[in-house]
Amino acid sequence: MNSQTIVFKSQPRIKAVSSICGTKESEGIIGKYAETVLSDDMFGEETYEKAERKMLTNVIEGAIKNGGLKRRDVGVLVLGDLLDQIISSSFAAREFDIPFLGVYGACSTMAEALAVSAAFLDGGHFESTVAATGSHFASAERQYRYPLELGCIRPPQAQWTVTGAGAALLSREGDGPRVTGATLGKVVDFGVTDVNNMGAAMAPAAADTLLAHFRETRKSPEDYDLIVTGDLGALGSRILKDLTWEKGVDISHNHTDCGEIVYKVIEDEYQGGSGAGCSALVLCSYLYEKMKRKELKRVLFTATGALLSTVSSGQGESIPCIAHCVSLEA
Amino acid sequence: MNSQTIVFKSQPRIKAVSSICGTKESEGIIGKYAETVLSDDMFGEETYEKAERKMLTNVIEGAIKNGGLKRRDVGVLVLGDLLDQIISSSFAAREFDIPFLGVYGACSTMAEALAVSAAFLDGGHFESTVAATGSHFASAERQYRYPLELGCIRPPQAQWTVTGAGAALLSREGDGPRVTGATLGKVVDFGVTDVNNMGAAMAPAAADTLLAHFRETRKSPEDYDLIVTGDLGALGSRILKDLTWEKGVDISHNHTDCGEIVYKVIEDEYQGGSGAGCSALVLCSYLYEKMKRKELKRVLFTATGALLSTVSSGQGESIPCIAHCVSLEA
Repeated sequence: MNSQTIVFKSQPRIKAVSSICGTKESEGIIGKYAETVLSDDMFGEETYEKAERKMLTNVIEGAIKNGGLKRRDVGVLVLGDLLDQIISSSFAAREFDIPFLGVYGACSTMAEALAVSAAFLDGGHFESTVAATGSHFASAERQYRYPLELGCIRPPQAQWTVTGAGAALLSREGDGPRVTGATLGKVVDFGVTDVNNMGAAMAPAAADTLLAHFRETRKSPEDYDLIVTGDLGALGSRILKDLTWEKGVDISHNHTDCGEIVYKVIEDEYQGGSGAGCSALVLCSYLYEKMKRKELKRVLFTATGALLSTVSSGQGESIPCIAHCVSLEA
Repeated sequence: MNSQTIVFKSQPRIKAVSSICGTKESEGIIGKYAETVLSDDMFGEETYEKAERKMLTNVIEGAIKNGGLKRRDVGVLVLGDLLDQIISSSFAAREFDIPFLGVYGACSTMAEALAVSAAFLDGGHFESTVAATGSHFASAERQYRYPLELGCIRPPQAQWTVTGAGAALLSREGDGPRVTGATLGKVVDFGVTDVNNMGAAMAPAAADTLLAHFRETRKSPEDYDLIVTGDLGALGSRILKDLTWEKGVDISHNHTDCGEIVYKVIEDEYQGGSGAGCSALVLCSYLYEKMKRKELKRVLFTATGALLSTVSSGQGESIPCIAHCVSLEA
């Protein structure tokens, strides 16, 4: 039996990060930590999709620069996003003369990109890599749900796709947080079909990967200062805590969720933030800063993704989900 | 300056493969080599998308079985496909109790999946992995172009999306072809906007990665028995030969293209096959068999991908493309 958990012996470093967030996102705690705060979510572009792409390009460039490197020093870009055919990533990569690997794990993409990046570095390939992702509320709404112009009412279990992006420059050297290991997730589907209730759909996947992580590493939640999930939101987080507690693992004391903390809670986000950019933004601003200051020393970053499409839902399918854990140490 | 080329010191093996092809694909040379030949491209399913997913599930299962392994022996599935949010891959992975990494490189996906799989194995993680992808003519037409029911006329530069899938079981041990290295591609965009002319769009990306490969490895085309591109088709292959020849690298004697050889040439495929399944099917049937028999000893597998979406084309963008090389030795 293979272990889902891999250990990165060389412990690649997150040498630098860069982050950008939209206007709504800037109102909460993240606004104080994000490197760039947009004053207009169109970011000077003609379309939402081009604004999303520009955010991603911006943070990739920013992470390389913040790490004191040149573009030619980076071995590979590992990028993904929510748009069909991950065009934000491909078109962002077009701006850089750097090899590109596209990944897709929906909102779990940042954890997947970190794990793949670290695996290349740990195997002795390349000196530095960039792992990045992002999302945009308006492009996601248009693609997955309804045109904004329709003004559809959101149900109370809904979340709000984060407008933001985060990039991490990983390197074999440096003094940033170390990527010590990863637990790769399996696809878990509990039969949820409500596309407005992603938190409930994804919570079982988060529980599955976290339980595998603690079982395989013989660690307990207390070994981490923070267990941070990607975008389960308030309801999904409660379900996760219940599911892990039922299996004898109590994460209630040191768990938080990027979707829960990304917004200053006001009425219309309901369960909080979601989107690939949600966990990437929080990791590459707030969490990174806390780890740099040693206020958080051991973080289990567990991004979750709902692997549906409008076609699969239209054909009556339930929502397969996944979560990947990446363990970080300051 | 980083090299785009990585060397897998442990040389992971392709321990086994499995392949499946549609009715039209079975009429050509591939029909003699594919493990499973469909008598009906619906594969007993209600929708094209579900048929595509079933093909992918089938070859993953087949590769594991052909390698004499059990599902629990496989460390990770590295899968991707052309459908929005790579649902064929995610839903196929749902059938297996195995960790899953989703990748996307359009029709270059098989090369990317092989490179990522080999990187994990080479880094000492997992004993075995599966790299797989597939495509279905009807689901691709519906998503990227027009409903089949419209009966649209195809222009002469068009290609035909292959209905087929291929899976490779990679392992640290065994006696199959060795994965000795990979050259990861950069995004190349020569400004082609004709979505019916993928071969012309992708040829510069193939040339870029191949030239990088020969430059960085100090090898020449003669060092390979076969340089096989993914799905440039007849026109794209001619462009590739011209572009590399202009740079002093003559691949004309030992180059072929999966898109060119996958069909028994009849009128309506025009430039040949395309789709993520094209190169995966040819690799996991014809090429693998030739390598097992030592009729081909050194193969440079170079899958190419067009990273567009209907949205990017609709917004007036040209087609960014990519190619990744994987070197295989019998």
